[in-house]
Amino acid sequence: MQRYFIDQAKVEEIVELPQEVAHHLITVLRATIGTKFELVFADRQAYLAELVSIKPEATASLIKKIGKDSELPVKVILACGLPKTKEKPELIVQKGTELGANKIIFFEAERSISHWNSQKQSRKITRLQKIADAAAEQSHRNAKPQVEYCPSLKELLANYPATTRLVAWEESAKEGESSRLFQSLSKLAKGDSVLAIFGPEGGLSSAEVNIMEENKVMPVGLGPRILRTETAPLYFLATVSFVTELSGNN
Amino acid sequence: MQRYFIDQAKVEEIVELPQEVAHHLITVLRATIGTKFELVFADRQAYLAELVSIKPEATASLIKKIGKDSELPVKVILACGLPKTKEKPELIVQKGTELGANKIIFFEAERSISHWNSQKQSRKITRLQKIADAAAEQSHRNAKPQVEYCPSLKELLANYPATTRLVAWEESAKEGESSRLFQSLSKLAKGDSVLAIFGPEGGLSSAEVNIMEENKVMPVGLGPRILRTETAPLYFLATVSFVTELSGNN
Repeated sequence: MQRYFIDQAKVEEIVELPQEVAHHLITVLRATIGTKFELVFADRQAYLAELVSIKPEATASLIKKIGKDSELPVKVILACGLPKTKEKPELIVQKGTELGANKIIFFEAERSISHWNSQKQSRKITRLQKIADAAAEQSHRNAKPQVEYCPSLKELLANYPATTRLVAWEESAKEGESSRLFQSLSKLAKGDSVLAIFGPEGGLSSAEVNIMEENKVMPVGLGPRILRTETAPLYFLATVSFVTELSGNN
Repeated sequence: MQRYFIDQAKVEEIVELPQEVAHHLITVLRATIGTKFELVFADRQAYLAELVSIKPEATASLIKKIGKDSELPVKVILACGLPKTKEKPELIVQKGTELGANKIIFFEAERSISHWNSQKQSRKITRLQKIADAAAEQSHRNAKPQVEYCPSLKELLANYPATTRLVAWEESAKEGESSRLFQSLSKLAKGDSVLAIFGPEGGLSSAEVNIMEENKVMPVGLGPRILRTETAPLYFLATVSFVTELSGNN
């Protein structure tokens, strides 16, 4: 069933639909009076709703609360070294949203080949945020992740505190390190936050690795195969979901 | 380091490089005498190698065996209902290869909107196999996954036996089922095979669900969010890697 986010508090049982929602529902999906859909309010509560009028205003009547909350029990903040192509950030945002990320940050890593100047930044972030919003609706999430830009690893570490801070460490595969990810995820409790850092295509520089060591960011391996920069965050999110939602430890 | 597959047995310490490998190494990467790279032979054994001649033939000398094997300890056969767009099979094959799939099959599901007629099949499979081969080299695997086409779910179940057979079941999310994937993966032992079935965009039909029930294919949920048809197989592979390679149960 179609789900929409409404950036306002729920005040009454009859809701006037924002123009964009009304347009999508009525013009794109050709909904008629009585069509059911889902609305998520600013407090993340989802409701089953029904279209009750189209003109002069499109309004919906709330039928009942939807009990299920589909947010990950821990807040995952993905921090990705800015990738080279336009497609990779889009893929990370779309799939990362489906897989439950709370926040997705693109930071300029030393080996990032693309750079977003200040003009580009807001245009890129606006576009990526739209992709996140649509993916959040499609995957039936209760919250839209935020997409953000950060100019360096230093600022990332200063501005995004978290209960657990990890970096996907490609050298781990070579060294045969294979237990830190499991250990870190096993310790997570409901409400914790995880900042997970991923290098760009060329990997992280030794200066960046040093900064992370100084800041006690834990290097973790994601298995013995070399994952592309856009694949590693998706692997990570799937394992967080598996451990916190499906393993019975939750 | 660059890795190439060579579809022949290793017989001597000096190897004549196939034309495609020589072209990529010398013309694309501009390798010179002494450049090191990796070769994987038909028996899946990888070697560190060095370019020793360019003309008249490109030859390499094998320096040493590479001990590490990066194949998943269990064989995962992904079976995906044929998706609607050209891009989705390509994404599934590229990322599925990085994440360790042994075989990737596209089958015509009842709700598949795209259909591959016999002409299209071989063209599509050839193209997808090339994507798999390149991704296997890039992710430093020891084997290339096979990409195959299957005309129906019935033939899929008849022709692809496996120790464990699962289907990603979207209704699981709605029903709150959250333990079968963990239970199934926990039972896997080295050398086992898993056939994992995923519906196309429109999901699986009730007739298909019935056929799977009759064939004792276990329905498993992949968490509370609704995953797109191309995202679900990647989630699944990441959890197989996590359980069999990183959890210490392996």
